[in-house]
Amino acid sequence: MIGFDFTLSIGINLLEFDVFLSRDNVPVITHNYRLQPSATRGPNGRFISGQGPRVSSLLVEEIESYDVGRLDGNTSYGQRFPDQAQLDGIKIPRLVDLLHLLSQPKYESVCMMLELKSDPNLMDNRVSRQRFVSVVDETLRSAGMTQRALLHSFDWGLLAECKKQIPDMPLSFLTQLKENGLSVGEDSSANLSPGLNMAGVSIPDEVSKAGGSVWCPHFSEINRSDLARARDLGLCVGVWTVNEPQDIEAMISLGVDSIVTDYPGRAQKILLDLGYRW
Amino acid sequence: MIGFDFTLSIGINLLEFDVFLSRDNVPVITHNYRLQPSATRGPNGRFISGQGPRVSSLLVEEIESYDVGRLDGNTSYGQRFPDQAQLDGIKIPRLVDLLHLLSQPKYESVCMMLELKSDPNLMDNRVSRQRFVSVVDETLRSAGMTQRALLHSFDWGLLAECKKQIPDMPLSFLTQLKENGLSVGEDSSANLSPGLNMAGVSIPDEVSKAGGSVWCPHFSEINRSDLARARDLGLCVGVWTVNEPQDIEAMISLGVDSIVTDYPGRAQKILLDLGYRW
Repeated sequence: MIGFDFTLSIGINLLEFDVFLSRDNVPVITHNYRLQPSATRGPNGRFISGQGPRVSSLLVEEIESYDVGRLDGNTSYGQRFPDQAQLDGIKIPRLVDLLHLLSQPKYESVCMMLELKSDPNLMDNRVSRQRFVSVVDETLRSAGMTQRALLHSFDWGLLAECKKQIPDMPLSFLTQLKENGLSVGEDSSANLSPGLNMAGVSIPDEVSKAGGSVWCPHFSEINRSDLARARDLGLCVGVWTVNEPQDIEAMISLGVDSIVTDYPGRAQKILLDLGYRW
Repeated sequence: MIGFDFTLSIGINLLEFDVFLSRDNVPVITHNYRLQPSATRGPNGRFISGQGPRVSSLLVEEIESYDVGRLDGNTSYGQRFPDQAQLDGIKIPRLVDLLHLLSQPKYESVCMMLELKSDPNLMDNRVSRQRFVSVVDETLRSAGMTQRALLHSFDWGLLAECKKQIPDMPLSFLTQLKENGLSVGEDSSANLSPGLNMAGVSIPDEVSKAGGSVWCPHFSEINRSDLARARDLGLCVGVWTVNEPQDIEAMISLGVDSIVTDYPGRAQKILLDLGYRW
């Protein structure tokens, strides 16, 4: 929540974040389907060891018993963000905590790219997947925030479920052809998206056919002609996750519609240095 | 103020910042005795050009007509902080704005290293220098914050004036022997401190004789024996401005009492990675 708060305070008006359901069906904001030992401490103050528990196997109270304020510098994920603040007493937030923050009048123009993250163990659990979509929808609806969100996923099956349940909600289709964009600490998307890296497949066309409003490829997997095709199809195009200055610069020059980055100040600065408005 | 707010939110409890007086004697928080073209835009939205005006020559309302929310990426100072957020409508804050922020109960344990910065053009203006000290003292006193501040300067003459006017206030003596620590965008301290780089001079002894509680050398200018001598004299030792990871690590290993850095999260992380408590 401190990170969101800071991001908002510097004028960012689109937040991208990941949501899972707890075992008792509370949407929480966290990055991986298992709690990550590199960023999660137990009630004893120590980083958890082994394979972390699955978020979907824990009650929200159990989830909130962990502290995710620090990174373990002995792990490779813990070394990925050397400037990150190290805090104590930081719980995994619930989606409603963020919605509450965004309900402040000063943030009324802020929108959400809400990524529905899938637990690979639940891919065949139809009831659980339907519930995931309905609970997130209901949570947004109760907060009066449906107009300020789009749902975003690598899991095209889940997006089809969204289309069915919430036909008026814009959908964003994440794609990743190779694991080349897979940084330390990321869940694999390999089994979530349809097979798209075959000769003759136009990904923007597939996104459009599936009912998408937005296409979000990994930044290394977009080119000028696919971008042009996406535009022809009326899609917006966002790229993820662009952290290195030369990559941010390349994506700005290419002319994508949005950039997902862990360093928003860096993106602002490069945009301005290139002579664009912020 | 956004920067202070974020710094406080991540648990930093000692803030180091620089104060000047406006022409109408209002203490403001800014880094150089002239407004810097690389970080200052005029009412027309453009970065100012040439040599910026002296802070001490401007009324506070004039100071507040500038926007210091962005860096000009075409300048070397503007390239020094590539991740810095780029904002609009950001005024140079008054000291009272920070005191107001710190008056919140949640920040009651936060203290200030308040650096009194000197305009080299006013070094011979005794009345102006006396007034600088008395106005800052009065401002802290009115806010009930004298117990939470120490005054800190390269200008030992100004610190002597502090000793005279506010004998109970702890003083911190900044030192810099060579300009080797002088990064882009820093005012020179060359004419503010006494000549200390002569054979046989023990800087900690000089600080102690001058009535200091704290000695703050540039991090490249401290060694184990001077640190030990400072401790023998009962001084606390802080170092400035330590941004590179290997330098932060070296200062932690040396065992200084405080580190001034532009990257507090980085310092927290290295401290923890080395097995210390934060």
